[in-house]
Amino acid sequence: MTQASICTIGDEILIGQILDTNSSVIARTLEENGVMVTRMLSIGDDHDTIIDNLRNELEHNQIVISTGGLGPTKDDITKAALAELSGSKGYVMNEPQLEIVHRILKARGLDVLDINRAQALVPDTCEVIPNQKGTAPVMVFRFPEERFGHPATLYSLPGVPFEAIGALPDVVSDIKSHNPLSDIFHKCIMVSGMAESALSKKIEDWEDNLPSDMHLAYLPNQLTGVRLRLSIYGGNREEEEKRIDEEFAKLRPILGDMIYSYQDDTLQNALGSLFRGTGMTISAAESCTGGMIASLITSVPGASEYFLGSVTSYAIAVKQRVLDVHPDDIISYGVVSSEVAAAMADGVRKLTGSTYAVATTGLAGPGGDDRNPVGTVWIGLSGPNGTTTLTKVFKNDRKTNIERFSSAAIDALRLFVLNDLKH
Amino acid sequence: MTQASICTIGDEILIGQILDTNSSVIARTLEENGVMVTRMLSIGDDHDTIIDNLRNELEHNQIVISTGGLGPTKDDITKAALAELSGSKGYVMNEPQLEIVHRILKARGLDVLDINRAQALVPDTCEVIPNQKGTAPVMVFRFPEERFGHPATLYSLPGVPFEAIGALPDVVSDIKSHNPLSDIFHKCIMVSGMAESALSKKIEDWEDNLPSDMHLAYLPNQLTGVRLRLSIYGGNREEEEKRIDEEFAKLRPILGDMIYSYQDDTLQNALGSLFRGTGMTISAAESCTGGMIASLITSVPGASEYFLGSVTSYAIAVKQRVLDVHPDDIISYGVVSSEVAAAMADGVRKLTGSTYAVATTGLAGPGGDDRNPVGTVWIGLSGPNGTTTLTKVFKNDRKTNIERFSSAAIDALRLFVLNDLKH
Repeated sequence: MTQASICTIGDEILIGQILDTNSSVIARTLEENGVMVTRMLSIGDDHDTIIDNLRNELEHNQIVISTGGLGPTKDDITKAALAELSGSKGYVMNEPQLEIVHRILKARGLDVLDINRAQALVPDTCEVIPNQKGTAPVMVFRFPEERFGHPATLYSLPGVPFEAIGALPDVVSDIKSHNPLSDIFHKCIMVSGMAESALSKKIEDWEDNLPSDMHLAYLPNQLTGVRLRLSIYGGNREEEEKRIDEEFAKLRPILGDMIYSYQDDTLQNALGSLFRGTGMTISAAESCTGGMIASLITSVPGASEYFLGSVTSYAIAVKQRVLDVHPDDIISYGVVSSEVAAAMADGVRKLTGSTYAVATTGLAGPGGDDRNPVGTVWIGLSGPNGTTTLTKVFKNDRKTNIERFSSAAIDALRLFVLNDLKH
Repeated sequence: MTQASICTIGDEILIGQILDTNSSVIARTLEENGVMVTRMLSIGDDHDTIIDNLRNELEHNQIVISTGGLGPTKDDITKAALAELSGSKGYVMNEPQLEIVHRILKARGLDVLDINRAQALVPDTCEVIPNQKGTAPVMVFRFPEERFGHPATLYSLPGVPFEAIGALPDVVSDIKSHNPLSDIFHKCIMVSGMAESALSKKIEDWEDNLPSDMHLAYLPNQLTGVRLRLSIYGGNREEEEKRIDEEFAKLRPILGDMIYSYQDDTLQNALGSLFRGTGMTISAAESCTGGMIASLITSVPGASEYFLGSVTSYAIAVKQRVLDVHPDDIISYGVVSSEVAAAMADGVRKLTGSTYAVATTGLAGPGGDDRNPVGTVWIGLSGPNGTTTLTKVFKNDRKTNIERFSSAAIDALRLFVLNDLKH
């Protein structure tokens, strides 16, 4: 299997000033394309350090991807190190990248200075993949077998995340056209409402009976639930994807509507899919989630088609005055209660005139008591066929509890609407 | 200077399934305590790989911190590799950690099985720092000078972030008591409303005139602005901190209220500081920010003291019906306008009875037109002394624009209230 190493260059990573997010995205992309990542490392902006480390990685891998150190300022020295490592005799101007430099600076209303033009200068030992999103191009250095005992290629990418990630498809194409990669096919489904460990127990039999050439991965996320991914190496794409679909189809009777998408997706987008083009609308009333449900729903482009709005009712007076929650309910049952969650959902639905509404009231922490321990949330759901509530308890810190409350509420609304659509 | 390397162990990092956030926090903590991080690397769960890599890092550094691979399941093999690397002859039970294992499992209502007890077993070559937050302890291996040519210490931490970060203070204490660290002093101020590059230009003279023993770092963040940090190595803490304070004091006439805190902080917390204990209250009306302003304000524990609530008015009908925005204003000026931003702020202030209110209307994208290009936001501010508006244009993607709109709105409200307090 083709092996790769990912190397991040920059002092700002080593002092913890910047979190390296590029490596993780590059690793996932390589893995999904059948390349095995053996090591990831971060090193400083030092000439000898860069050369020594990249040489060592090239000795142990067919592919090395470096990011960073390509900026125009004097502390960015990757290019000179790469020139020396590759035995370059000089620099050449890359005309396609120079055009991009001119275009980008013009769009920003800036003059093109020598320091900018120099961004398109590359060692004469490399090929160039033009970088449409920034001034520094991707440089490709191909080393013959005699240099490191195997053919090896070094890709030098910019460090700015949207430039590095933007260049990835071209880099992957180049890797594929130069290396004997076994094809790899993946498909995903998204599962809500269950932790990884509980899900793994529930689908244990299914997992044990998977064909031996299929590989299963659990990819959990606080806000989107668990992404289940099946992979197969080699074979015919159409046939293999059909085989994967057949295995996922067997999960349907086990997991039902907990499967919310058959591709990489989010709960708020799955919710949007139920509403788009139907004329039905949503509103929300939030207490403990403090606006995060609205924020998640409106993170989907085009949400204005079905999301009318929301009320964050942190104060009891706002619950009463704006959402029309009856003071007696608050006194009798407490703010964190099924009755208040239901009244909030009904209240915001009436206020906005939406088809459906979701509401939350709970304790994200700190605090809590015997009746409502910290981490308790009541979710209210209101729709044309009535109102219902449910409760959940999470045991995390304030920030994580708010995230889990919000994603649980969006998922509860999705299941509530799905149920109506079935009857 | 004492040098350190950070090594993350786990296949899940190399396939891009998990983003390694531990290394960045550990690097920042070491740097703040006068230890220089020379390299960070991530490797897989393989016995020989772990031994080879850790040996190599120990040859080049006095301190190596590894995280991960200490779980109870069979794919976690770090402990066996460390036993071999350190020449251990067997395992011993660490009683303080065993007590913690019992306590943790009891709290979860679980029986203590052999697999759990084994978490407290450690190689006889290590010292233990008990881990109060998880079942696997921190193991400390001290290697004598003859082994690697210099005294070297390996700290093995659990991979779960809150356990790894939770153990850091004890690890730092141990490092300090065993290594001749030069003292280092840091102080921060937080600056809002300016990009790093513009800020750097504005304070260029100040920066050029800093005493030569002071080091300045810019630590920018989308939501909190720029953190400026001054550091001094060596000297007397009290005196050096006083010298740093004097330098920061010189920034006050240049930056004014753009300095929102003299310690690591967030805008929403600085806003909260203005309101806590005053009886004054806040509400918000959000269009393009979709709930994020409320979500940020309520992320501060205790925000219920001063945050009454908010309305997310995505639909025009909600702007009119709930916030009492006049239809003529929307027709004459458009939804994204100074007039509508002002009317929304006044509307939500009246609705909730809050002392102050902030409102947003804008275009996060996609879309936009000549009058209101994508990235435009109007911010409305309403208070006891009147109503005002301002506009900003950002050029990012939808997600980042929403974040920048939200933090600009919170900052605008902070400055609006500050101005009232001065008059």
